[in-house]
Amino acid sequence: MNTFGTLFRLTSFGESHGAGIGGVIDGMPAGIAVDEELLRREMARRRPGQSTLTTARNESDTVELLSGIFENRTTGCPIGFLVRNTNSHSEDYENLRQIFRPSHADFTYQAKYGLRDYRGGGRSSARETITRCVGGAFAKMALNLLNINVHAYTSQVGTISLDRDYRKYDLSLSEQNDVRCPDPVIAAQMADLIRQVKTEGDTIGGIITGVIQGSPAGLGEPVFGRLQAALAGAMFSINAVKGFEYGEGFSGVTERGSNQNDVFVPDSKGGITTSTNHSGGIQGGISNGQDIYFRVAFKPVATILKEQQTVDVNGKATTFQACGRHDPCVLPRAVPVVEAMAAMTILDFYLQNRASTHFEKL
Amino acid sequence: MNTFGTLFRLTSFGESHGAGIGGVIDGMPAGIAVDEELLRREMARRRPGQSTLTTARNESDTVELLSGIFENRTTGCPIGFLVRNTNSHSEDYENLRQIFRPSHADFTYQAKYGLRDYRGGGRSSARETITRCVGGAFAKMALNLLNINVHAYTSQVGTISLDRDYRKYDLSLSEQNDVRCPDPVIAAQMADLIRQVKTEGDTIGGIITGVIQGSPAGLGEPVFGRLQAALAGAMFSINAVKGFEYGEGFSGVTERGSNQNDVFVPDSKGGITTSTNHSGGIQGGISNGQDIYFRVAFKPVATILKEQQTVDVNGKATTFQACGRHDPCVLPRAVPVVEAMAAMTILDFYLQNRASTHFEKL
Amino acid sequence: MNTFGTLFRLTSFGESHGAGIGGVIDGMPAGIAVDEELLRREMARRRPGQSTLTTARNESDTVELLSGIFENRTTGCPIGFLVRNTNSHSEDYENLRQIFRPSHADFTYQAKYGLRDYRGGGRSSARETITRCVGGAFAKMALNLLNINVHAYTSQVGTISLDRDYRKYDLSLSEQNDVRCPDPVIAAQMADLIRQVKTEGDTIGGIITGVIQGSPAGLGEPVFGRLQAALAGAMFSINAVKGFEYGEGFSGVTERGSNQNDVFVPDSKGGITTSTNHSGGIQGGISNGQDIYFRVAFKPVATILKEQQTVDVNGKATTFQACGRHDPCVLPRAVPVVEAMAAMTILDFYLQNRASTHFEKL
Amino acid sequence: MNTFGTLFRLTSFGESHGAGIGGVIDGMPAGIAVDEELLRREMARRRPGQSTLTTARNESDTVELLSGIFENRTTGCPIGFLVRNTNSHSEDYENLRQIFRPSHADFTYQAKYGLRDYRGGGRSSARETITRCVGGAFAKMALNLLNINVHAYTSQVGTISLDRDYRKYDLSLSEQNDVRCPDPVIAAQMADLIRQVKTEGDTIGGIITGVIQGSPAGLGEPVFGRLQAALAGAMFSINAVKGFEYGEGFSGVTERGSNQNDVFVPDSKGGITTSTNHSGGIQGGISNGQDIYFRVAFKPVATILKEQQTVDVNGKATTFQACGRHDPCVLPRAVPVVEAMAAMTILDFYLQNRASTHFEKL
Repeated sequence: MNTFGTLFRLTSFGESHGAGIGGVIDGMPAGIAVDEELLRREMARRRPGQSTLTTARNESDTVELLSGIFENRTTGCPIGFLVRNTNSHSEDYENLRQIFRPSHADFTYQAKYGLRDYRGGGRSSARETITRCVGGAFAKMALNLLNINVHAYTSQVGTISLDRDYRKYDLSLSEQNDVRCPDPVIAAQMADLIRQVKTEGDTIGGIITGVIQGSPAGLGEPVFGRLQAALAGAMFSINAVKGFEYGEGFSGVTERGSNQNDVFVPDSKGGITTSTNHSGGIQGGISNGQDIYFRVAFKPVATILKEQQTVDVNGKATTFQACGRHDPCVLPRAVPVVEAMAAMTILDFYLQNRASTHFEKL
Repeated sequence: MNTFGTLFRLTSFGESHGAGIGGVIDGMPAGIAVDEELLRREMARRRPGQSTLTTARNESDTVELLSGIFENRTTGCPIGFLVRNTNSHSEDYENLRQIFRPSHADFTYQAKYGLRDYRGGGRSSARETITRCVGGAFAKMALNLLNINVHAYTSQVGTISLDRDYRKYDLSLSEQNDVRCPDPVIAAQMADLIRQVKTEGDTIGGIITGVIQGSPAGLGEPVFGRLQAALAGAMFSINAVKGFEYGEGFSGVTERGSNQNDVFVPDSKGGITTSTNHSGGIQGGISNGQDIYFRVAFKPVATILKEQQTVDVNGKATTFQACGRHDPCVLPRAVPVVEAMAAMTILDFYLQNRASTHFEKL
Repeated sequence: MNTFGTLFRLTSFGESHGAGIGGVIDGMPAGIAVDEELLRREMARRRPGQSTLTTARNESDTVELLSGIFENRTTGCPIGFLVRNTNSHSEDYENLRQIFRPSHADFTYQAKYGLRDYRGGGRSSARETITRCVGGAFAKMALNLLNINVHAYTSQVGTISLDRDYRKYDLSLSEQNDVRCPDPVIAAQMADLIRQVKTEGDTIGGIITGVIQGSPAGLGEPVFGRLQAALAGAMFSINAVKGFEYGEGFSGVTERGSNQNDVFVPDSKGGITTSTNHSGGIQGGISNGQDIYFRVAFKPVATILKEQQTVDVNGKATTFQACGRHDPCVLPRAVPVVEAMAAMTILDFYLQNRASTHFEKL
Repeated sequence: MNTFGTLFRLTSFGESHGAGIGGVIDGMPAGIAVDEELLRREMARRRPGQSTLTTARNESDTVELLSGIFENRTTGCPIGFLVRNTNSHSEDYENLRQIFRPSHADFTYQAKYGLRDYRGGGRSSARETITRCVGGAFAKMALNLLNINVHAYTSQVGTISLDRDYRKYDLSLSEQNDVRCPDPVIAAQMADLIRQVKTEGDTIGGIITGVIQGSPAGLGEPVFGRLQAALAGAMFSINAVKGFEYGEGFSGVTERGSNQNDVFVPDSKGGITTSTNHSGGIQGGISNGQDIYFRVAFKPVATILKEQQTVDVNGKATTFQACGRHDPCVLPRAVPVVEAMAAMTILDFYLQNRASTHFEKL
């Protein structure tokens, strides 16, 4: 199942060390100006080697757009794209042929498929998230027309964390540091921790917070197509994600209904708003027009530079020590991936809702 | 989108105060003996009025199986079913016609559809989860043949919580008390808290832990069809769910890779196992044969018996106070729903995997 | 796969001799007045026993609408419905337990599922088409708002046939005779043939022509979602259908491009039309605003009252002779089924197109 | 909707004059040896310039396989592929910018999307069928392991036709002439007709017959997933297809049930077979183990070298005369496309059936 979405769909292919990574975006609305600068920016935010906090692997990750665009506008036809793999040291991985690396997908791919491309994790490599960023960039081009904005940032690395409330921060600052954290002081602490972990040859986890602003009320398709169900599924399709919550999330379980309910009040324009937003912008699976916010938990990634016990493909005990270039903390580079998945999800639901909303007024 | 699943599919319909709740189970394997006692038990676990901890509303919730069964075996044809609504005091809800209840779906349904069945929440009522329990019961009948077992229990109510590690408990005890918590002492504390909250006319949240045991390695369809993505989507389709995590989840974000990795070791039967299971039984989106465990966060439900501010359908400020029979804590009755969603998900992935696994050996 | 459609979806269940036949309509736009008279009429057109040309089996086929409707309007929530089986003489079918009837689905269901409900064909009975007519009736309620009209009629029975060109007939006459043929003289000949075949204990095939008028240009989702592909798939899901063609169809294969092309000309309102419509209203998989017309071939149904050779479930040669009440010609009752499938298809594509059309103008 | 299939899925992209044509094959079973010679052969059968009967346009159509293959075996991961456009004379098409060509998709794409890539038909070009042949080649690699064979051939061009019964021909001869007709004498007549039509600057239609041999009983997913419904949908997704029939098809409508029914008889191996195969290998939507055969009607393609009336994009009357290199008859090159669509369909249903068949015996 390498296709994501219902009306706006991304189909992806590619391995870490094959010819390249690519995909097909289907259901992109027609007539939208292609913002190549936006696409380049999203790719740059995800690419390795962008700072001292990430892997030193250096890949330019240039996207070739193959179809679906004419005279710089989307045509409504599928957008094929390809990013060639250029910096693939496959020989670095020859030692992986016989080994199942701990907490990697080596064992499960072998169990499921009976064989695997062991070079750099093959299909299970996080390099596959390139396709999300391409899809997300096109989704953002459409969302920009709707004034729907998707923003994510690093809110926790290890035990260093921001306040849960995203409204306390100027989110526009998050791209001004390598960690992608909107508080420069905390960002520096996070960066220090990541560098320390890197020195140790270890890895560290963290949390990314996402916020969708400008979503109209009405997006979401109850009961199994609840907006939060799709967002959760989208986030759990990202490597290393172990948790998702929206609104008050896990912290709300200790609360009483009387202080979690969001009271409706008239707004200044004659409409209806809520005085609080514990719900996270979704009620009954449908957006209510308030900000949609959520948190995504990332485990420390599995590739560490320390020797570990493991077994070989025959089940015999052995040891394994990774070498090469790896991310000590996936968070900074995962921020654009979280945004991309959220952008594709919200656009998909926008289109689904558009299909039938106010039909009776025709 | 009232259909759940890919090969094993549940399509559901029905409102709280209409004729009834029902659905269609499609993709049920043929030739499986229908275990009516199992079905009755699942329905009894979900039904209202089962204890002093739940709503006093008393509905027998008898399931009529309409098709897809012949001489007590499944035929591979779709299983239609219907549960009539019997105890619907629609007149109780006349006051809701003009009101948007705080943190209910009244407003969002109205915004999306332009009208709504306001009686008892209509389609957004948790009564809709009946269909999950029917679907889950049939999924369990198939999983029983595979020795795959799905178990859920209440692990936290408000601030009263069990240890995270499900292996510390005898899960078979969880059905011996009204809270569905496997520790009888903690269960009693939880029950006390729920009763106290009920007295206050308020509600309280909590956490349900789920464990899937006996799953073979190989279930999951990377990259967008990761097993955890489907489980998360399944759980977030349940009313009041605000968070989902699997394996170490959010607690793992503060850890290092070196203590989160699950080292592979030979098992006693010549196979391969892991010495720890921080991963929660899934690696690279595919089950690895270890226990799959996860936690689901429920907010305190929105219906409280205290007066609240709100607006009417014209956006004018007013107040609202619910009366009638409501659950002070949804957890005890949500346990079978969590199991049902997990059971349908795992069976669906079992069937998907079966479609192509070891094809090359044909 | 008992679900039909993408955004407007019908999920169906039920067997000929079980509790009943029913389904779920999902994706019905909200706010549409329920036209119960239209629903009753569609059911009456399909029901057995309506004339001397059909089976004498007499079933009232009353539809109970279970959900998705409030104060006589659709709510956007799924519409569950149920038609009870009332006139099921199961004992009539006891002789089928051990037999595979020629050209019925007995053998293939047994081969696929390992067991079968042999009573009256079980799931493979044409009684299942009830659900299409319910779904089609709701689709028509929505299409009526769009001034899209779907009409089908019997254009051939055995060798007695109308001219291919539907424009030569007043289609409103087709419901004035039992055959559902718009030419009263030919209709009488067809009726005579059907009665004669009935007397012989035999069955006869024929062709139904369908016309969709008022469809706007732009419906269809290339390349695999071409409108004609969906219409064809819809028609081939009906029992006894062996062929489908649209526009000039098979007859066009002997023609030259120069006399098959539809030349574009300005229309009287400043728009664009075509001077001919050999294409059948679809070009490149997308409707062009002209009439969409097609023909559906039905074989003579398999149930004849003559003795036939066959085998029993153990593969031993035996003979079989059907008795009871059967249709000598399925065409008259299939006309509303063809309309229903076409109506659901065109509405589904209308909704799909609505999702993204003119997005750039937002 | 540029994705075809349920478990075996082809997603396609590309225009006639963009960078290239490509796609993603998802759901390919793992561990299957990649038969590059088979792939090359299928591409050669479809490519332009292969004989005097086809367009003189000469494109090598080399397929680059980008992923999903490791050490010459499929890995179960998606197979991305790309065929670069090399012989695109875009300037040839500048005159199309302002014109809607008769019976082409120019008008409908413009109506639907508000803009179009007018060069060579853009997305609506038959060049898109390249992706079907790649998908079909991989499907055939899997089907070869199952001894399921898919064969198509030209059975009619204009009024020159073979006997309907495919069993009268040695199908292996069909690749020995440019028309792809198994009767060499008729093939020569067809070739003469095509050349004559070409001389006239005109085009001619015809019929392709397809045969699937070796399919086991049990493939097909009633009721909406009938095997014939999927085959029909597959064929109608091909450019210029106007009709589809299977078994006796349209010719059976004039017959009686008593001579159309396929009587079951014991076969020589203790199994069950039918003495005739009017049904075309499918009963109740499920394969019965006999040959599946069908016929596909192609209209004369729209591009003729004669002057035609038409309108420009502003709706003003004008004339149009195509020049350049075009197929006078699409049949010879469509034969491998028909095979490809049939192969993908039957493999998809094989996988679907495999998911649940004999589950009860586990």
